[in-house]
Amino acid sequence: MATQAAFLAGFPQLAAQPARGRVGTGAPARVALAAIGSAKVGARAGVKAVAARRGVRCRASLIEPDGGRLVDLVAPEEGGRREALRREAASLPHRVRLGRVEKEWVHVLSEGWASPLQGFMREHEFLQALHFNAIRGADGRMVNMSVPIVLSVGDAQRRAIQADGATRVALVDDRDCPIAVLSDIEIYKHNKEERIARTWGTTAPGLPYVEEAITNAGDWLIGGDLEVIEPIKYNDGLDQYRLSPAQLREEFARRNADAVFAFQLRNPVHNGHALLMTDTRKRLLDMGYKNPVLLLHPLGGFTKADDVPLSWRMKQHEKVLEEGVLNPESTVVAIFPSPMHYAGPTEVQWHAKARINAGANFYIVGRDPAGMSHPTAKRDLYDADHGKKVLSMAPGLERLNILPFRVAAYDTKQKKMDFFDPSRKDDFLFISGTKMRTLAKNRESPPDGFICPGGWKVLVEYYDSLVPSEGSSKLREPVAA
Amino acid sequence: MATQAAFLAGFPQLAAQPARGRVGTGAPARVALAAIGSAKVGARAGVKAVAARRGVRCRASLIEPDGGRLVDLVAPEEGGRREALRREAASLPHRVRLGRVEKEWVHVLSEGWASPLQGFMREHEFLQALHFNAIRGADGRMVNMSVPIVLSVGDAQRRAIQADGATRVALVDDRDCPIAVLSDIEIYKHNKEERIARTWGTTAPGLPYVEEAITNAGDWLIGGDLEVIEPIKYNDGLDQYRLSPAQLREEFARRNADAVFAFQLRNPVHNGHALLMTDTRKRLLDMGYKNPVLLLHPLGGFTKADDVPLSWRMKQHEKVLEEGVLNPESTVVAIFPSPMHYAGPTEVQWHAKARINAGANFYIVGRDPAGMSHPTAKRDLYDADHGKKVLSMAPGLERLNILPFRVAAYDTKQKKMDFFDPSRKDDFLFISGTKMRTLAKNRESPPDGFICPGGWKVLVEYYDSLVPSEGSSKLREPVAA
Repeated sequence: MATQAAFLAGFPQLAAQPARGRVGTGAPARVALAAIGSAKVGARAGVKAVAARRGVRCRASLIEPDGGRLVDLVAPEEGGRREALRREAASLPHRVRLGRVEKEWVHVLSEGWASPLQGFMREHEFLQALHFNAIRGADGRMVNMSVPIVLSVGDAQRRAIQADGATRVALVDDRDCPIAVLSDIEIYKHNKEERIARTWGTTAPGLPYVEEAITNAGDWLIGGDLEVIEPIKYNDGLDQYRLSPAQLREEFARRNADAVFAFQLRNPVHNGHALLMTDTRKRLLDMGYKNPVLLLHPLGGFTKADDVPLSWRMKQHEKVLEEGVLNPESTVVAIFPSPMHYAGPTEVQWHAKARINAGANFYIVGRDPAGMSHPTAKRDLYDADHGKKVLSMAPGLERLNILPFRVAAYDTKQKKMDFFDPSRKDDFLFISGTKMRTLAKNRESPPDGFICPGGWKVLVEYYDSLVPSEGSSKLREPVAA
Repeated sequence: MATQAAFLAGFPQLAAQPARGRVGTGAPARVALAAIGSAKVGARAGVKAVAARRGVRCRASLIEPDGGRLVDLVAPEEGGRREALRREAASLPHRVRLGRVEKEWVHVLSEGWASPLQGFMREHEFLQALHFNAIRGADGRMVNMSVPIVLSVGDAQRRAIQADGATRVALVDDRDCPIAVLSDIEIYKHNKEERIARTWGTTAPGLPYVEEAITNAGDWLIGGDLEVIEPIKYNDGLDQYRLSPAQLREEFARRNADAVFAFQLRNPVHNGHALLMTDTRKRLLDMGYKNPVLLLHPLGGFTKADDVPLSWRMKQHEKVLEEGVLNPESTVVAIFPSPMHYAGPTEVQWHAKARINAGANFYIVGRDPAGMSHPTAKRDLYDADHGKKVLSMAPGLERLNILPFRVAAYDTKQKKMDFFDPSRKDDFLFISGTKMRTLAKNRESPPDGFICPGGWKVLVEYYDSLVPSEGSSKLREPVAA
């Protein structure tokens, strides 16, 4: 128990909460025994899961999604609904063109990551997200919702839609192909300055999401109920990793998981991460869980220019599993389709909330989650501890167990990553993400035991792939982060 | 019922909620029958109330304060506690000097307007206020708390306090006289940019509260439990109006109020306001309440330079009651000691929450509450409707009935203020606060029936009093607002 207490130190919310697996919440899950997993098993399981998806209530052993029921906004395959919707979308007089980030949000909404949201936010939802980081559901309970999920339109389009009294609009991709229909629409002002200030706690120029998706967006927001014609695919060779919350829940149930701990990341995995994840599983076993499963969940949507691109990160994660750094039997690797805000304590709530909907009841939170350097001042944008503090107090996340990161560093005596021991602090070497990227870029080697060789090789290859175009190297150079 | 429905239109929260006075909440209040009131009756009642204040549970017929018990942080008169505390404060090695606004916050905290807060916010409270506009109490319930109530210290003082390991500091006024002791202190970073962005939704220069109380404040915040040596007084001839929440509750009970509707203001009262308040009382009577009492509650703390000063506003309000525009029998006039933020939808929650603690269960909200012009752009800082929308959805304010303003304007046909009738819109004249101030400044008369003659005279006198010092007139000139 001493170990547990240390692990939970400073998080009374968790320490006081009985582990769900121990108290039990109902009937035992009627699932098959866990098969031997692999990095790709989720993708295989996904095929089975899709058929059973619509309207499936979640298994009793997994945490309930927000609102009690996982939202699914994709038109059913059966009954001709997809064709009818496609025809309607093609004939609707008003079509809103989706940018990259907005299409990612359609994906996120359609699969219920933002349950109970039924589409792009209407004003009452937008205001609650901005002011309270939480939205009151029909049952009066608050669900967490910290980032606005909104769609913008310009003034000319707004006037045209309102002049027609239209209640439904088509959402189309960059080649004008219909993706979805938004109905019972509501159009309201897009006060960009206020949105940015309340989401990021700064209005300094240079916030990546703002530059990508807000600065040039329309001055109006259009909310409504979303119906998506068919599942969103990217055809980039990674769709097999894009498991929906329903598919993930099926997979966790199939593996007979009695605890799911989620690890959000947007960086290559090194042995410090691996140590933390392995250690977390061990501690959950110590707490009485029989089969804790790790959801290794790299973010797959928009990221800033100096982050390692998704395809390279996925290659790197595959190597980490292949080389046995993480146990494939207790690990599910999947892609989280959300775009990245870099909004620190505000965004970490979204990252955690979405994973509840995917069945995770434990969430690992590190130092400065979703943080970055201040875009104009010489400091980090957020206090490194605020993320975990805000997360532990956030309305609507009471059911989620927050697991704070323990600090891992390279132990130069033992030549491996280990939890930092302040009593012999000079033995430890801290290798930041920036340092790691600089080493890889310069083809220098990190110390033995910092990262598995195959995983390192992928990184070096990525930076090598950037070298040829000398002219553009400045743009692609990682900035200090 | 048709009238009620129209009155409540757009506020399902209120429409769905049974009126407290009708459903009943317990034993009938054991109070004397209402005496004939006057504008100053509150002050008289206050004398009686003070003695019975400490630890008095609220009468059953009034709304419960947040946290169930009204906080009182003033040392009791009996038992020598005040002297002991004064001696301790004088001997403490660390003293934090209070600015004007900070002393106002000590006043606010000491009387329980911010119940259940026990002192200046510690970091967990500050973060919850910033991110959620609400704080989770010990019982797990959320109470509303939308503005940070914090005290800053500079870096040198922070280092000195921490070097000593001090747990208690004295709070002193501008002449170094001890006001209070702050105990079990916690010192944490004051990220001004983030605080401003999340509170105001902008970081543009020129926000009055920011310039008064944040820009030059220290880079650290010091939270802790507050104990105030004696009730805060201003000795400006207006202390008789500064009724604490406990005193107001006594007064409402004495008057046998079964509904209390609060009207927050920081401007002179004209006949449009009066119409609204009179009309509200009528509607509450229609709803079945027997004795709704109006709390006319001008804000008495820091206001921006072009607002009419408190002393002149109080003179003006006295005239309005003297001339019978409002009924003294059903009106209590008192001063709300909070400083003004001009933080729109964020601040209106604080204005409403504080009035719950003073016993109000109805809150009148107008267009653009606590709003102002954007300090640098040519537009209002907030959407005029956001205040009432955010208020109606705010966590921790579920018990409060929100009464939206109906738009009143000058009816040129009837020569009086009346509710705007869009079917004959050309008959109506809108006279803004800026317009009213400009008329008074230029000694022009407003149209008959816009405002009572005595109330108008006070305003003209105020602007006359500004004229002599030609050199400083620029500073005192009202800016467009």
